[in-house]
Amino acid sequence: MSAIDPAAAPAVVVRLLREAREAVDREMDRRLSVPAGGDAAARLVEAMRYAALAPGKRIRPALVLAACEAAGGRREDALAAAAAVEMLHSYTLVHDDLPAMDDDDLRRGRPTVHRAFDEATAILAGDGLLTAAFAAAAEASAAAVAVLAARSSEVLIGQALDLAGTRPESLAELERIHRAKTGALFAASAELGGISAGAGEESCARLAEYGMAIGTAFQYADDLDDGDFAALASEAARRRIELGHEAIRLAERLPSPGVLIELARWVSGL
Amino acid sequence: MSAIDPAAAPAVVVRLLREAREAVDREMDRRLSVPAGGDAAARLVEAMRYAALAPGKRIRPALVLAACEAAGGRREDALAAAAAVEMLHSYTLVHDDLPAMDDDDLRRGRPTVHRAFDEATAILAGDGLLTAAFAAAAEASAAAVAVLAARSSEVLIGQALDLAGTRPESLAELERIHRAKTGALFAASAELGGISAGAGEESCARLAEYGMAIGTAFQYADDLDDGDFAALASEAARRRIELGHEAIRLAERLPSPGVLIELARWVSGL
Repeated sequence: MSAIDPAAAPAVVVRLLREAREAVDREMDRRLSVPAGGDAAARLVEAMRYAALAPGKRIRPALVLAACEAAGGRREDALAAAAAVEMLHSYTLVHDDLPAMDDDDLRRGRPTVHRAFDEATAILAGDGLLTAAFAAAAEASAAAVAVLAARSSEVLIGQALDLAGTRPESLAELERIHRAKTGALFAASAELGGISAGAGEESCARLAEYGMAIGTAFQYADDLDDGDFAALASEAARRRIELGHEAIRLAERLPSPGVLIELARWVSGL
Repeated sequence: MSAIDPAAAPAVVVRLLREAREAVDREMDRRLSVPAGGDAAARLVEAMRYAALAPGKRIRPALVLAACEAAGGRREDALAAAAAVEMLHSYTLVHDDLPAMDDDDLRRGRPTVHRAFDEATAILAGDGLLTAAFAAAAEASAAAVAVLAARSSEVLIGQALDLAGTRPESLAELERIHRAKTGALFAASAELGGISAGAGEESCARLAEYGMAIGTAFQYADDLDDGDFAALASEAARRRIELGHEAIRLAERLPSPGVLIELARWVSGL
């Protein structure tokens, strides 16, 4: 059983994930509308939709919505930001799967975009999803774009370290990669929720730290599932729990933490 | 001799291009700073710098600065937008050159990024430049990001049509591709100049149309140089001049058109 299996989640988290998926998929469906004509332009948007609307947990957009509520906002105010984060996440998957990168044939149980379409279309579809992510973030605010861009740069650094075959020899080295590859986009998700709620700088910074903590815990859980970095496994398991406690402490200082506490517990295995 | 050879440009355009190159290259140099440590993260930023700071005319950022002045602003207010446009242009070149796309070995007289580095680094460097472009645009405003994103989507559609081997059989079909592939980013450049100047909607819309006209004329000139679409060459040559006149009419209605008139003349061969 996966350590981050939605079926193992507490009821409030299950409901959050289900509601977030419905809302963000509707939002992405609206934003990624296929142009008439059926030519190459339509095919490109089909490839973008294939990637973004694929089955998945939608944990990042769920975090955007939950963080917005925790900062005192309404979920509907965070829908553009939630779609931005999920489209950005999708773009990273499409490009990471390319033959020159991880060369994966399957993603989320289906052929990867370059398998289902072709390699050139996969490159352009990823570019298109990244572009659509920034277009959506711009509807929130320039600050949302700045946060998304800064965190997206961290993700690229993490991917470059990963591709270079950097073998972490200590937990600190491993965590550097986890923070960049996974933590950064969770941090962006939580902070964008705060920005969408119109929260102040302090709450937004706390949300970003919360997101970084659970994103890093999420990646440790993923490693444990996959048997990666086995030499560091027991340290990693302890660190995952520590990050969960850290996230909960941060969430408790927010106006109305709500589901963020349960989310942190679930992701960190507490 | 190239129809869009800087050596054939009138003195005011030559000066604009030189000053724009100096200013925008300094701005990009500052934004693309290599992280310490010399590992994979540093190599990724080196690849981004290799692409963005390569020799080139810098006509798009020059247009941003000139449009800002024409709309009553100061050039320094448009530097972030100018860097955004040039980084976005660089990303399109890096990805277009990839083996799965145009498979080019040379660009601007030097090995392409995937040749000088490797294919995975080229994909990530392009992604990084697109991200850096939006980060820079966000410093201007959310409106600047929205314009850049919308035009960047058009560029992707143009690239998809081009890759699909769409053979235009009429000038209208050819112009559809030219507008998307080249006109769109010129339109974004001119409009971003207007936005950076704090110009009103009407001036910004006029600037966007001006940019679309000279960008499309620029692409016709490029075709004539390369001998592309030879069956349509005489129609294309006439259309290029028509677009030049259209651009001049649009520029004349701006607060202080300045060098935009000469720029339109040069690009359209008037």
